[in-house]
Amino acid sequence: MAAETSTLPTPPDVVRCAYMELVVTDLAASRAFYVDVLGLVVTEENENAIYLRSLEEFIHHNLVLRKGPVAAVAAFAYRVRTPGDVDRAEAYYRALGCRVERRANGFTTGVGDAVRVEDPFGFPFEFFFDTEHVERLTWRYDLHTPGALVRLDHFNQVTPDVPAALDYINKLGFGTTEKIQDEAGTVYAAWVRRKPTVHDTAMTGGDGPRMHHVAFATHEKHNIIAICDKLGALRMSDVIERGPGRHGVSNAFYLYLRDPDGHRVEIYTQDYYTGDPDNPVVVWDVHDNQRRDWWGNPVVPSWYTDASRVLDLDGNPQPLTAREEAKELDVTIGADGFSYTRQGDTEHGFKVGNQL
Amino acid sequence: MAAETSTLPTPPDVVRCAYMELVVTDLAASRAFYVDVLGLVVTEENENAIYLRSLEEFIHHNLVLRKGPVAAVAAFAYRVRTPGDVDRAEAYYRALGCRVERRANGFTTGVGDAVRVEDPFGFPFEFFFDTEHVERLTWRYDLHTPGALVRLDHFNQVTPDVPAALDYINKLGFGTTEKIQDEAGTVYAAWVRRKPTVHDTAMTGGDGPRMHHVAFATHEKHNIIAICDKLGALRMSDVIERGPGRHGVSNAFYLYLRDPDGHRVEIYTQDYYTGDPDNPVVVWDVHDNQRRDWWGNPVVPSWYTDASRVLDLDGNPQPLTAREEAKELDVTIGADGFSYTRQGDTEHGFKVGNQL
Amino acid sequence: MAAETSTLPTPPDVVRCAYMELVVTDLAASRAFYVDVLGLVVTEENENAIYLRSLEEFIHHNLVLRKGPVAAVAAFAYRVRTPGDVDRAEAYYRALGCRVERRANGFTTGVGDAVRVEDPFGFPFEFFFDTEHVERLTWRYDLHTPGALVRLDHFNQVTPDVPAALDYINKLGFGTTEKIQDEAGTVYAAWVRRKPTVHDTAMTGGDGPRMHHVAFATHEKHNIIAICDKLGALRMSDVIERGPGRHGVSNAFYLYLRDPDGHRVEIYTQDYYTGDPDNPVVVWDVHDNQRRDWWGNPVVPSWYTDASRVLDLDGNPQPLTAREEAKELDVTIGADGFSYTRQGDTEHGFKVGNQL
Amino acid sequence: MAAETSTLPTPPDVVRCAYMELVVTDLAASRAFYVDVLGLVVTEENENAIYLRSLEEFIHHNLVLRKGPVAAVAAFAYRVRTPGDVDRAEAYYRALGCRVERRANGFTTGVGDAVRVEDPFGFPFEFFFDTEHVERLTWRYDLHTPGALVRLDHFNQVTPDVPAALDYINKLGFGTTEKIQDEAGTVYAAWVRRKPTVHDTAMTGGDGPRMHHVAFATHEKHNIIAICDKLGALRMSDVIERGPGRHGVSNAFYLYLRDPDGHRVEIYTQDYYTGDPDNPVVVWDVHDNQRRDWWGNPVVPSWYTDASRVLDLDGNPQPLTAREEAKELDVTIGADGFSYTRQGDTEHGFKVGNQL
Repeated sequence: MAAETSTLPTPPDVVRCAYMELVVTDLAASRAFYVDVLGLVVTEENENAIYLRSLEEFIHHNLVLRKGPVAAVAAFAYRVRTPGDVDRAEAYYRALGCRVERRANGFTTGVGDAVRVEDPFGFPFEFFFDTEHVERLTWRYDLHTPGALVRLDHFNQVTPDVPAALDYINKLGFGTTEKIQDEAGTVYAAWVRRKPTVHDTAMTGGDGPRMHHVAFATHEKHNIIAICDKLGALRMSDVIERGPGRHGVSNAFYLYLRDPDGHRVEIYTQDYYTGDPDNPVVVWDVHDNQRRDWWGNPVVPSWYTDASRVLDLDGNPQPLTAREEAKELDVTIGADGFSYTRQGDTEHGFKVGNQL
Repeated sequence: MAAETSTLPTPPDVVRCAYMELVVTDLAASRAFYVDVLGLVVTEENENAIYLRSLEEFIHHNLVLRKGPVAAVAAFAYRVRTPGDVDRAEAYYRALGCRVERRANGFTTGVGDAVRVEDPFGFPFEFFFDTEHVERLTWRYDLHTPGALVRLDHFNQVTPDVPAALDYINKLGFGTTEKIQDEAGTVYAAWVRRKPTVHDTAMTGGDGPRMHHVAFATHEKHNIIAICDKLGALRMSDVIERGPGRHGVSNAFYLYLRDPDGHRVEIYTQDYYTGDPDNPVVVWDVHDNQRRDWWGNPVVPSWYTDASRVLDLDGNPQPLTAREEAKELDVTIGADGFSYTRQGDTEHGFKVGNQL
Repeated sequence: MAAETSTLPTPPDVVRCAYMELVVTDLAASRAFYVDVLGLVVTEENENAIYLRSLEEFIHHNLVLRKGPVAAVAAFAYRVRTPGDVDRAEAYYRALGCRVERRANGFTTGVGDAVRVEDPFGFPFEFFFDTEHVERLTWRYDLHTPGALVRLDHFNQVTPDVPAALDYINKLGFGTTEKIQDEAGTVYAAWVRRKPTVHDTAMTGGDGPRMHHVAFATHEKHNIIAICDKLGALRMSDVIERGPGRHGVSNAFYLYLRDPDGHRVEIYTQDYYTGDPDNPVVVWDVHDNQRRDWWGNPVVPSWYTDASRVLDLDGNPQPLTAREEAKELDVTIGADGFSYTRQGDTEHGFKVGNQL
Repeated sequence: MAAETSTLPTPPDVVRCAYMELVVTDLAASRAFYVDVLGLVVTEENENAIYLRSLEEFIHHNLVLRKGPVAAVAAFAYRVRTPGDVDRAEAYYRALGCRVERRANGFTTGVGDAVRVEDPFGFPFEFFFDTEHVERLTWRYDLHTPGALVRLDHFNQVTPDVPAALDYINKLGFGTTEKIQDEAGTVYAAWVRRKPTVHDTAMTGGDGPRMHHVAFATHEKHNIIAICDKLGALRMSDVIERGPGRHGVSNAFYLYLRDPDGHRVEIYTQDYYTGDPDNPVVVWDVHDNQRRDWWGNPVVPSWYTDASRVLDLDGNPQPLTAREEAKELDVTIGADGFSYTRQGDTEHGFKVGNQL
């Protein structure tokens, strides 16, 4: 980084994660997945891109599917509080020595003045205030499906050095809510937020920069189950990678799917309020079997290893840096007793992870 | 079998599965599990036995926990329509050449005149009509917990020769509702019912006679999730063996737990009405990945291999006969492409069973 | 009645309520209500009639909408166990001295040999076994809506003399499960069943013969709430007559709607198992404010007074006979203290019925 | 007001509504209601006061029940972002000319430095930062009941002049999210927020200052239904004043109860995210029958007329000022056609409000 923290300008006042721009290789296949199966609402579309939103959204989109040669993430876009915060974002990242691009007419349809950066860890972040308002479909129950997605909840990023990335994002104004670490202090993942939920994004340790997942919220748990049931009916159950289950971290009910390009989508509901300035940070032991799934169900290895590439501002995939510290997959899975349900106690070996 | 089917007397008119008598090795530990954790209601108890019922039950018990040296099942007890059906049960099994014991004062507290038999496949079946009525707690919401168990739903038995066992239980008057088989006609499991749900009991292929599980019903899916959440809070998540999930067979939402002796308990909700005489039998291909879990989530091996021993009328474990036909575990799990989500199509390999 | 009970032939073995034939005055309006709003599935339709089924049904239909000049009920149709039970039904009602019509090719498309009768209380009952099987959509979650109706649950009939009607239907083989009466022994309503739920039909005291409602079941309570939410979104909330709420009687969660002709439809979920021969009959005091709504919410007067006319076998409305005994509406509503939450205790007057 | 707005100091940065101090006349009766029935958690208690919190709270309390001679509200307490915001609150209200009291050791156990004011509309507002942290019981599912209250959601105040009160609270930094008004511009109620939900408090038109209700959130709708079911089981259904139902305003699922002193408590779930600076304000026509209940169910008159007195800083009830503008009750209820489901269309008269 080119600047001392102490000399950094005021960061932009980020309101929330607002949309992700995904590059997909087969637009029709992605449309079938996100619109026909998951029920996201098409705000606008053309032969190159589809602009989607969740049912309770009033800004133009929460997800852009853009046709491209390589499946990747083109932007993690955050909404800021005022037009001036776009200026502040630009100044902030220039001060960090990052590559920065400002476009008065925005990078995507429906969004105005915006800045995109290659952040210090290689992620394409966007900051914008100006956006077209569209109909919030909150009350339009005639359009809701059993698995209605009502809100974009969060992003999740893969990066090699979690403490460093956490320091950066904390300085950007995101507060840490939860962490996974071990007794030696190695941090495996951390959750950070602007809006008062458990996160707007998270830093997951691994080879990066990559995108681990993008998450949409439902109202209730049965909505998530309905998505699984529908995938079964459509003979698409093999897109379910993990879950449904209850997270330890965040306490949310979750499901992980993989889209036609392998991009991971989480469906998520019912984490907790984190808006107080002294909100207690929850720290989980990486060896606690209930941290990732409160019911102790195993995490599939691909969930740890797979993630989507992210693009630089020219649209080329960012090179990867390997994680040097211990990996969560390595320290937790296996018959070697690395993990526990009750510390110091023997386990019932009923879990699939112990038996296969 | 000692008798020709054509000469068999009229079978008893079975109303439903009514209770299971479980032998447990640590009565206090079992009480903690079934009462403190699962919330079954104690109708009566003493130092040797605990009589439990579900919240909507009006007969004395659905589960007897009896202290004994070896964890096993002492009885699968069915309620019959009239006192005369106990006579019919006695005559029927005597005609089958089975060992039969009749007790005018019943085998368990709260149940009167009853007959127990060692059925042709080695299972201890009981038939009774007379029973003490107790308060049905349907309306007592002040006593309901988030995971309220409202009804005994079914038993599940492990037996080597499923078609033979099915023939026997069909003749006893149980109608088949669903089956798992393969293209060669091998039957891996079958579900049979008296009450108009998917089953009162099921025949699961394997070394037997053994008891695969006993199942209690909740009202809704969130009740089952609440049980998982509570097990997590109690740091008992390692008693969750499989699930929660949606069955293909029965379409029910399910969870499998293991009690302190390893007896398997299913929590189950929302199968469908089967009461018409021509109710369509659903036949599943054993290679269909969605048959056991509609979402394609893997079945843990122990779920196929483990089961509880059953006792003869002297209280000794019945000897086991090995299954000679193909086993479901062997023909479905592995990287060898035995199973499919879409017949003839390649799979996404996102499932834990494919990765571990 | 023309015959002594003691000389009556064996009644037909009724399996369950199976379908209702409704005469509607505007077929397109009724289709919009039952198909577009409620999501019943069209098995078949033409310019004069629409054949609808619930999602878990495998027989041809649960509801026939037939175009006609006067909104009314043409048939309460019950499925019987065997073809021979149609003969038994014919003989039984002939012995009762009722008008009877037998049609080998059925009265409605999709149903074969059937008998229709004008029963002793003026209701057009049909009994049939033969019916076309159609796809059971249980597993077709891609077709389920948030308010999915999965099963026909019951009918409800209005008749002046409840004890007399109850005696008749009990002799037909329907068991009583619940009753509302007063301290003087006046019976206001009674619930009777063949399948082991709280009812296949009910007798509600009032001027009759009339049809009070037809009820469809959902899986869970949130499905019923989703129907209300959708009606709000469609600006059709004024078709909600009563509810949603929790019944005292049956313990089910309920909602009452009125279709475009004013026919009342109940949406219903989660009553309890009643299949044992000695299932305890639940008797409610008519003055108990929680009998009709467990939460004490008031019953709208039209719910007591309005009902649909029923037709004779020529298609003419049956004449009405007035109820002579006390009416539930008269003995329960008002500021005169007829009802109670806690017997002998004063009430909090927070309910709308006490304030308007 | 003593000061020109233009000269007002910077208002405190309010984070959220944090707790209400209720004066109750029978502490044991109130404890039974809030603890035994509703399941709020006792953080601390003595013979004069009980300090309660919701299950996901980490500050000392969300509700104080203090024994006193007259049922009333002693404080609407808001948490501020920093200790300095307490200073800002003090200065702000002094500048407004209000009576202000600062206590370094707080007004209630578990809260430190705080300021209480009699605001310009007569409400006792408290602002504090310092508070004792207690265990957040989010993950303690072993303690959750079927109707688990997880969060304090909002307050609701009754005041005669809604636009004036709205102007004041907007200047304090609360953003308006929804309003009810008529075609002439009369404002009947308005909702305002700091945290990004529909409200932290609301201004309801009526004789004031009074407290309309305090609201706690559940996770899901079935939790609210479980509270109703439990009240029925306890024969306390007459404390249900209104609901359950779906609000038009806020889109939340709701229930209104009255505590032993008549204080109104709402149980509330699933409103929507409002955190963007340009969050669209939803304006409802007072004549829209779906504004207060999306299903068009009637609002009981007491819900409009009853409310709790509030205390001045000496503990004496504030005198009431009558509302001079039209009252919502008067312009919406009755057979005179003041309200509509579909503007310009005739109504089905199925609602209890139209019939009693």
